[in-house]
Amino acid sequence: MTEPGQPIKIFNARTEWLRGEGLSCDVVLSSRVRLARNLAGLPFVAQATRTDRRHILDLCRARLVGAGLAKQLMWLNLHDAPPIDRAVLAERHLISKQLARGVLPGRDAAPDEPRGVAISIPDERLSVMVNEEDHLRLQTIRTGLDLRGCFEQIDAADDSIEAGLDYAFHPRFGYLTACPTNVGTGARFSVMLHLPALRMTGEIDKVKNAAEDMSLAIRGSHGEGSQNTGDIFQISNQTTLGKSEDVLLAEMQDEIVPRVVEYERRARTMLLERRRTILEDKIHRALGVLRGARLMTVDEAMTLLSQVRLGVVLGLIEDLPQQTVNHLLLIVQPAHLQRIANKEMPQGARRIARADLIRERLGPGTNETPRNGQ
Amino acid sequence: MTEPGQPIKIFNARTEWLRGEGLSCDVVLSSRVRLARNLAGLPFVAQATRTDRRHILDLCRARLVGAGLAKQLMWLNLHDAPPIDRAVLAERHLISKQLARGVLPGRDAAPDEPRGVAISIPDERLSVMVNEEDHLRLQTIRTGLDLRGCFEQIDAADDSIEAGLDYAFHPRFGYLTACPTNVGTGARFSVMLHLPALRMTGEIDKVKNAAEDMSLAIRGSHGEGSQNTGDIFQISNQTTLGKSEDVLLAEMQDEIVPRVVEYERRARTMLLERRRTILEDKIHRALGVLRGARLMTVDEAMTLLSQVRLGVVLGLIEDLPQQTVNHLLLIVQPAHLQRIANKEMPQGARRIARADLIRERLGPGTNETPRNGQ
Repeated sequence: MTEPGQPIKIFNARTEWLRGEGLSCDVVLSSRVRLARNLAGLPFVAQATRTDRRHILDLCRARLVGAGLAKQLMWLNLHDAPPIDRAVLAERHLISKQLARGVLPGRDAAPDEPRGVAISIPDERLSVMVNEEDHLRLQTIRTGLDLRGCFEQIDAADDSIEAGLDYAFHPRFGYLTACPTNVGTGARFSVMLHLPALRMTGEIDKVKNAAEDMSLAIRGSHGEGSQNTGDIFQISNQTTLGKSEDVLLAEMQDEIVPRVVEYERRARTMLLERRRTILEDKIHRALGVLRGARLMTVDEAMTLLSQVRLGVVLGLIEDLPQQTVNHLLLIVQPAHLQRIANKEMPQGARRIARADLIRERLGPGTNETPRNGQ
Repeated sequence: MTEPGQPIKIFNARTEWLRGEGLSCDVVLSSRVRLARNLAGLPFVAQATRTDRRHILDLCRARLVGAGLAKQLMWLNLHDAPPIDRAVLAERHLISKQLARGVLPGRDAAPDEPRGVAISIPDERLSVMVNEEDHLRLQTIRTGLDLRGCFEQIDAADDSIEAGLDYAFHPRFGYLTACPTNVGTGARFSVMLHLPALRMTGEIDKVKNAAEDMSLAIRGSHGEGSQNTGDIFQISNQTTLGKSEDVLLAEMQDEIVPRVVEYERRARTMLLERRRTILEDKIHRALGVLRGARLMTVDEAMTLLSQVRLGVVLGLIEDLPQQTVNHLLLIVQPAHLQRIANKEMPQGARRIARADLIRERLGPGTNETPRNGQ
């Protein structure tokens, strides 16, 4: 457990989902499974009083810390954590933006709302949010296309937690959740995909339409309403009621995602074969600008890094490990940037710090692992 | 003398005006003086018959080759020269575009028009066009601000030529020329200036207005009607009648150009002091794109090279000699590019060749003299 005021220990070189390895890792950045659970006999978070929520938090924390979920588990009281740490966790997808800010459904942000998160360290594969929309939101995240691995881990964690807590469960509907779309298995499967070629060829819209027809959501990397900066898209199932977890999982892991991966690969091959020089031009200009710039916005950084990532995957850029680019896609974000600099910075200073960090990491011929593994 | 069909020998490392040396070479690329002369008793070029022009050409060539104008003089019959060689000479400012194409005032281009040029090699400081608008157009060109050096050389050359040819001269008007603006001394003084800071700060318009008030012309690098691509501007006197060469020369060399140089330097200092990061960002992005691109238009190349040249002059880019950038500003042009590749190329292929050439010359840490000195 981390005491209030201590810096969070999430900066390490072993964050699993950033490794840029695993099945279809040329296209799939990471896989995630999420479960929504609520305690029996207690009101949902939005309906609960603050006293209730404090009680829920105490119950959940005690159980999470005692359930043997991981070799090492970090617990963080988010109402005690500095805003920058909370924002860092959200940028790492370990907590939601809502939980970071202390937003309950339909209310304004209240940073002192009693809430917390348990994170397995150093791999950051498992995280459990307490007092988000549901009492418990479990999440597992892994590099590449590995929803099955994610599910096995989350299923085991779920069982361990349930062994000491009474979940709200209805014999007909399944697990009860605050939002009806999560009722049932309460499971959401999602993958983070890098689809630059489909975007360049304009076929991304076809993929989006096809996904909607299958009741899937395609969104930006930070979920609902977020932009798809850097050509990174998240595909997830929209409903959890009516289909078993096994069916949902198999559909996503074995059919839908492989099909999108295939589309993206075909588009990349087409670009390589028919527009190679234009593609190389775009990719190497992107790298040139990243290596030269002294000022950079987060959006420009994501866009250029996305093009560079494509270049690395296609072998058009050598001596640059994919992991370095994956890392940069994460740490160019505002909270990480400030955390690395160890100070708060206004936007202008962040633009300078971001360009400096990128140059440092992308220096010509960089092929070592990032120095402090962020 | 170069025989028809032989390749012109102008590719060498000693082209004087590209050295990037001399007075105020941080701003002044080169200085030029031009004299217009016509033979007595023969019609001006535009009024002459083709037989006349052939006669004029023979007379002038014989005199130029025999006058001892330079240690080594190359003579070229332009009506025999391949179009690419003529275009190369125009890009090097050794002949006008009109002479390259065989355009007489008011007529269409006729590549077989009898016309030629004498060029001192390897320095390319002196060139004499025959059958341009006037029978003879002498030009001297030097690196940095050195109109006086240019004038001394052209004056000596003029005397040598006149010792064996009878010039059209009127005791009251001076040397007679085809265009009335050249009557009198027949002298035009011009300097090629690199004014990126004045352009960035928007003050270039003030300088232009001031120049017009002084009867000076500010134009793009290729004279009337040309664009100022790459922030390169040419300042020259508009009229030659009524002022002695000495007065014109002193005005340009000692007053007007130094003042513009001073404005540009002040603008650079201001940018360095107040907008340093923005300036560095712009300059290093330009270098990054030049080092990365696989496709490049001539306009983009000039614009980016101009920014890089500013960076070199201001010490914001190290390990890159100004001469390399000056050379590139010349050889990224279409005719040079094709001459270097030793083949004709359509626009698409030129864009690739241009990007390749730039990467080769600007490779990280390039600080050697260009290999074949073009």
